[in-house]
Amino acid sequence: MVKVGIINVTGYAGAELARLLAKHPQVKIASVTGRSAVDQPLGEVFPHLAEMGLTIQPHVDDVEMAFSALPHKASAEAIAPLIEKGVRVVDISADFRFKSAEDYPRWYDFHHPAPYLLTEAVYGLTELRRPQVAAARLVANPGCYPTGAILALAPAVKGGLIGGDIIVDSKSGVSGAGRSLSLTTHYCEVNENTQAYALEGHRHLPEIVQELAALNPALSPRVTFVPHLIPMTRGILTTCYAPVAEGVVPINPKGEAEIIEEYRSFYRDEPFVRVVNAPPQTKHTWGNNACLIYPTLDQRTGRLIVISCLDNLVKGAAGQAIQNMNLMLGLPETMGLEALPVCP
Amino acid sequence: MVKVGIINVTGYAGAELARLLAKHPQVKIASVTGRSAVDQPLGEVFPHLAEMGLTIQPHVDDVEMAFSALPHKASAEAIAPLIEKGVRVVDISADFRFKSAEDYPRWYDFHHPAPYLLTEAVYGLTELRRPQVAAARLVANPGCYPTGAILALAPAVKGGLIGGDIIVDSKSGVSGAGRSLSLTTHYCEVNENTQAYALEGHRHLPEIVQELAALNPALSPRVTFVPHLIPMTRGILTTCYAPVAEGVVPINPKGEAEIIEEYRSFYRDEPFVRVVNAPPQTKHTWGNNACLIYPTLDQRTGRLIVISCLDNLVKGAAGQAIQNMNLMLGLPETMGLEALPVCP
Amino acid sequence: MVKVGIINVTGYAGAELARLLAKHPQVKIASVTGRSAVDQPLGEVFPHLAEMGLTIQPHVDDVEMAFSALPHKASAEAIAPLIEKGVRVVDISADFRFKSAEDYPRWYDFHHPAPYLLTEAVYGLTELRRPQVAAARLVANPGCYPTGAILALAPAVKGGLIGGDIIVDSKSGVSGAGRSLSLTTHYCEVNENTQAYALEGHRHLPEIVQELAALNPALSPRVTFVPHLIPMTRGILTTCYAPVAEGVVPINPKGEAEIIEEYRSFYRDEPFVRVVNAPPQTKHTWGNNACLIYPTLDQRTGRLIVISCLDNLVKGAAGQAIQNMNLMLGLPETMGLEALPVCP
Amino acid sequence: MVKVGIINVTGYAGAELARLLAKHPQVKIASVTGRSAVDQPLGEVFPHLAEMGLTIQPHVDDVEMAFSALPHKASAEAIAPLIEKGVRVVDISADFRFKSAEDYPRWYDFHHPAPYLLTEAVYGLTELRRPQVAAARLVANPGCYPTGAILALAPAVKGGLIGGDIIVDSKSGVSGAGRSLSLTTHYCEVNENTQAYALEGHRHLPEIVQELAALNPALSPRVTFVPHLIPMTRGILTTCYAPVAEGVVPINPKGEAEIIEEYRSFYRDEPFVRVVNAPPQTKHTWGNNACLIYPTLDQRTGRLIVISCLDNLVKGAAGQAIQNMNLMLGLPETMGLEALPVCP
Repeated sequence: MVKVGIINVTGYAGAELARLLAKHPQVKIASVTGRSAVDQPLGEVFPHLAEMGLTIQPHVDDVEMAFSALPHKASAEAIAPLIEKGVRVVDISADFRFKSAEDYPRWYDFHHPAPYLLTEAVYGLTELRRPQVAAARLVANPGCYPTGAILALAPAVKGGLIGGDIIVDSKSGVSGAGRSLSLTTHYCEVNENTQAYALEGHRHLPEIVQELAALNPALSPRVTFVPHLIPMTRGILTTCYAPVAEGVVPINPKGEAEIIEEYRSFYRDEPFVRVVNAPPQTKHTWGNNACLIYPTLDQRTGRLIVISCLDNLVKGAAGQAIQNMNLMLGLPETMGLEALPVCP
Repeated sequence: MVKVGIINVTGYAGAELARLLAKHPQVKIASVTGRSAVDQPLGEVFPHLAEMGLTIQPHVDDVEMAFSALPHKASAEAIAPLIEKGVRVVDISADFRFKSAEDYPRWYDFHHPAPYLLTEAVYGLTELRRPQVAAARLVANPGCYPTGAILALAPAVKGGLIGGDIIVDSKSGVSGAGRSLSLTTHYCEVNENTQAYALEGHRHLPEIVQELAALNPALSPRVTFVPHLIPMTRGILTTCYAPVAEGVVPINPKGEAEIIEEYRSFYRDEPFVRVVNAPPQTKHTWGNNACLIYPTLDQRTGRLIVISCLDNLVKGAAGQAIQNMNLMLGLPETMGLEALPVCP
Repeated sequence: MVKVGIINVTGYAGAELARLLAKHPQVKIASVTGRSAVDQPLGEVFPHLAEMGLTIQPHVDDVEMAFSALPHKASAEAIAPLIEKGVRVVDISADFRFKSAEDYPRWYDFHHPAPYLLTEAVYGLTELRRPQVAAARLVANPGCYPTGAILALAPAVKGGLIGGDIIVDSKSGVSGAGRSLSLTTHYCEVNENTQAYALEGHRHLPEIVQELAALNPALSPRVTFVPHLIPMTRGILTTCYAPVAEGVVPINPKGEAEIIEEYRSFYRDEPFVRVVNAPPQTKHTWGNNACLIYPTLDQRTGRLIVISCLDNLVKGAAGQAIQNMNLMLGLPETMGLEALPVCP
Repeated sequence: MVKVGIINVTGYAGAELARLLAKHPQVKIASVTGRSAVDQPLGEVFPHLAEMGLTIQPHVDDVEMAFSALPHKASAEAIAPLIEKGVRVVDISADFRFKSAEDYPRWYDFHHPAPYLLTEAVYGLTELRRPQVAAARLVANPGCYPTGAILALAPAVKGGLIGGDIIVDSKSGVSGAGRSLSLTTHYCEVNENTQAYALEGHRHLPEIVQELAALNPALSPRVTFVPHLIPMTRGILTTCYAPVAEGVVPINPKGEAEIIEEYRSFYRDEPFVRVVNAPPQTKHTWGNNACLIYPTLDQRTGRLIVISCLDNLVKGAAGQAIQNMNLMLGLPETMGLEALPVCP
């Protein structure tokens, strides 16, 4: 049993890590910490985790592997000394996702306290970086939106199927906004309501651009990304639009079949990414680590439309973190993540 | 008092017509019909309308003006003889929206029973066709999605601000799917779930294309339209993306201000269309005839993003129908539509 | 036009007062105040009220009638000087609902700053206190739960139909908890979830007991009241249970018919209370001032079951406050409250 | 590996059986049947179960144990011949819950096709009938409402703590109504709405009465049961009210502590029933086999209030069926049911 710790278990991502790790057969949760609720039983904060019998502590202690679910900046500050001590870390925050330290003041409004770790940190979109993740001391777990958007676009970008004019329109449940209180997440303001937000530029945009560019250096992605808040707790559905690159496939049913085949081939043998035959529904990934992908060709306009969906707290956060942990520990990648989605 | 009738009051659009007309000061609902529930009190089918004291009849009778909320094909069949008799009609169905009779077999799978009325019928997006609506015998009330999409794009299309590569990504509540039973509208299949649908081409797409083309004959709109079902009852939020036409405005904050000014000027004095300063929320139009519009310029990519929202049963159906009726009868356009949105 | 003010317009009850008063034909909103957001346009806080063109002020000024939507204690402090100045007041808070000043420290944890007004204040459950309300300087608008519970039980209590062993099980939407932030109203904690609360004694219990006792001094009501939070924004459904008093009606269908007739007769001619023939739904009162009541006799056990429902922000708060205002001003009781429920 | 079959997998209870059994370590799903969708892949009907790779068959075949998720009457007809052949069966329908064949025409409107099995069948509320379940050929899995109500009341009834005047007020999510189509489960009719139903007597009432009477022959339970539909997919919260029997415990905090202790002692060592310290939330059992119970004493009235909650598709149906199967097969009772609730 590997001893692991969860730093800041008191948010939704932290609680989801606890829920999933509780039943992981090769892992023992040695300690969980919180910025609030120190010394409280975990079951008081999250009654659904009561049977775990854990108490919230001030610091992780004596662990081989740690997950940080702290907010940005605080996360980097907590992680740097752990790495020093030889603890391997999966960071759920954004603090090690960018390759350039300059992106932090620009997008997150802070100066990075440990820029020397940025090169080493591996952007842990597992399907695209398996060997690097396996060897990493520090994995930057991708954002929930980028996970869905990049998985939706990766085969097309890597295969040169599309031009760089990419539109990413995402619809997210509310848990992505976290457990902190704000009018934006007040039930009466969310229920029976929908809105777009962050039109001036969401923090996940540079992450999407960085990773798409890395997949195909010939492409200069000009990405417009608009997230929308919709009245549900979990789930992100992302609809991507991009022009099919000239001459790559014919703009007809045969071309569509070729694109779909390219997608199937790209994700063949992936345990968690499934190319599906019908528009996917977020509910079909509820509580589960899957990402469903549906590529289609708008033959009237020559545009590729790809829809992806996932559970933002699982494949978009805690589940992918555990998938990365499994790789880092040399365990089967699906271990502890086998439960089917809960539906309806 | 003008005597009006509602044909097929037993669907959601029909019931909404009844709700709004019940308090209209210049109108008397002389008869309501249903394909089911004939001879039942309206209040048994819709308890919230009980105080209206109406009974569902087999045929409208002795009215000056009629609204049809029948499904397509049945609507045209019912309307043609009424027009003959001199009754003026607002049709909520799609049966008189297309200018070309050939579009019906292609998109709706039936041959039009009264093609001779297609030229005469006025596409009643009120803000864009006031004089024609006022004079019309037959108004084709726009679809719910096209109302939001066309109002969002009209100033940009008419003003030549954008190129023809237009993406329309809509998020709709469930009432747009009607009151008929299907697994798609089963509570457990919709709640805590989201999906796209009709990727092969939604019936509202040709309507959007027809009207955008009419607004600017120089533009050939290449529209991709993807509707999404989201877990709420009322409301459509539409996010439109299109490249700013070369050289029209600078791609910077000044250019954005010019675009916004163009939008404000286009909709100045409109009682029901409001250009807003922040991303609009569907809840802010709940039960009300407003359409809120938020244009913005993505300065990283030179794309115009316009978001619109409305209540699909009001501005997207019954409310706009009454707005059109008011014009046809020479009444103030806002009469009977003054109630503020119900929020939260 | 009577000049009215809304004190603390920035909560849900305050905003609902503004929404409804905006279209009242005999009233002019002369000023609205807020504990926050002073000097901001009302439309910035509540975009659905933007067209009202109001600005939030520090104090109400130059009004003949005021509504207070302040929290308890603050409300009494603000109201006492207004009464002094001759302004008539409807208080949405609990501050003048109890007849005994001692109830305030016990149930609300404060000493009443103006106990001399308690005798004079009229508990404004309109249907039960018309003449007193009409003549009042100060009306204590009932709580949302008590409105539904008392209207459900009044005919049975007054008519001596039931014994005093009364159980009131209420299911409430979230807006009753107000617009303040708390984990209890976080979307992710409420959505797809239900719970009871305040089992140790909800503040609305003594209000229910006080008013039931007043209706029938021979009854000593032993009331158990359990409120439940359910995942919707508006609406309270209350299920009341009480044993039919011995010998009053036979425990059979005839007895049930007699009870129903007693209810119908009690509420005959009431514009806002409707005794209905089938279990009522909260949605059928959405945005509207109605209270629907469904009495039934459990013939297996000899228990009366009465279900009531209403919109907690309308009949349970702002709507009833306006109903009271209409009486106080000698206006028709339904004025400004005629809009039908918005459904679905 | 024991070979099991699921009869009528195409409803929600059937799908939930499949979801849970898919990961059961000692069971192999040998066949699943459907009344519709025969020969279709299960993953087409339920995409979240696609990875199971099953096809829907006309008949179960070659299994040692079967679950029937058929509707009543059809279930008894399908089960009788299986029992004959030596297949052990857990029946999710109501067909073997009653001890008296006469209850079927009265409550379910059919004559029982296999009344000779009624005596033998074990009412499988696992916690109350362990040895009988373990030995049974045929287990009648309890209804979702009775599971919550009986578990909430059992310690009090068995311990003689309460009198027989029992009120059971339940709040249920919509999945309990099944996957069949009806206006009652149309999203727009359920969302943002609540109602009571079956006031004339719900079919689960006689089940509750039968089992409470069996727990304490000295008690004649006079039960009023009112179920309510609330806008969520899963979960039942049940609030029970009953007078504390005279002289059993003092009506004060000490008496409450004694009652709570009685409950704790009754459910000590139960893996799935947990007596909790705060009003429980349905979300804390989401997707999981737990039943949470919260007993409390209303000291103003001397009434016991007990709240229970569970997931109607798990402890209220498929989960309890598997719990029963584990007992029947001599497996650890919790096997395959260990996953924590998914929350939020």
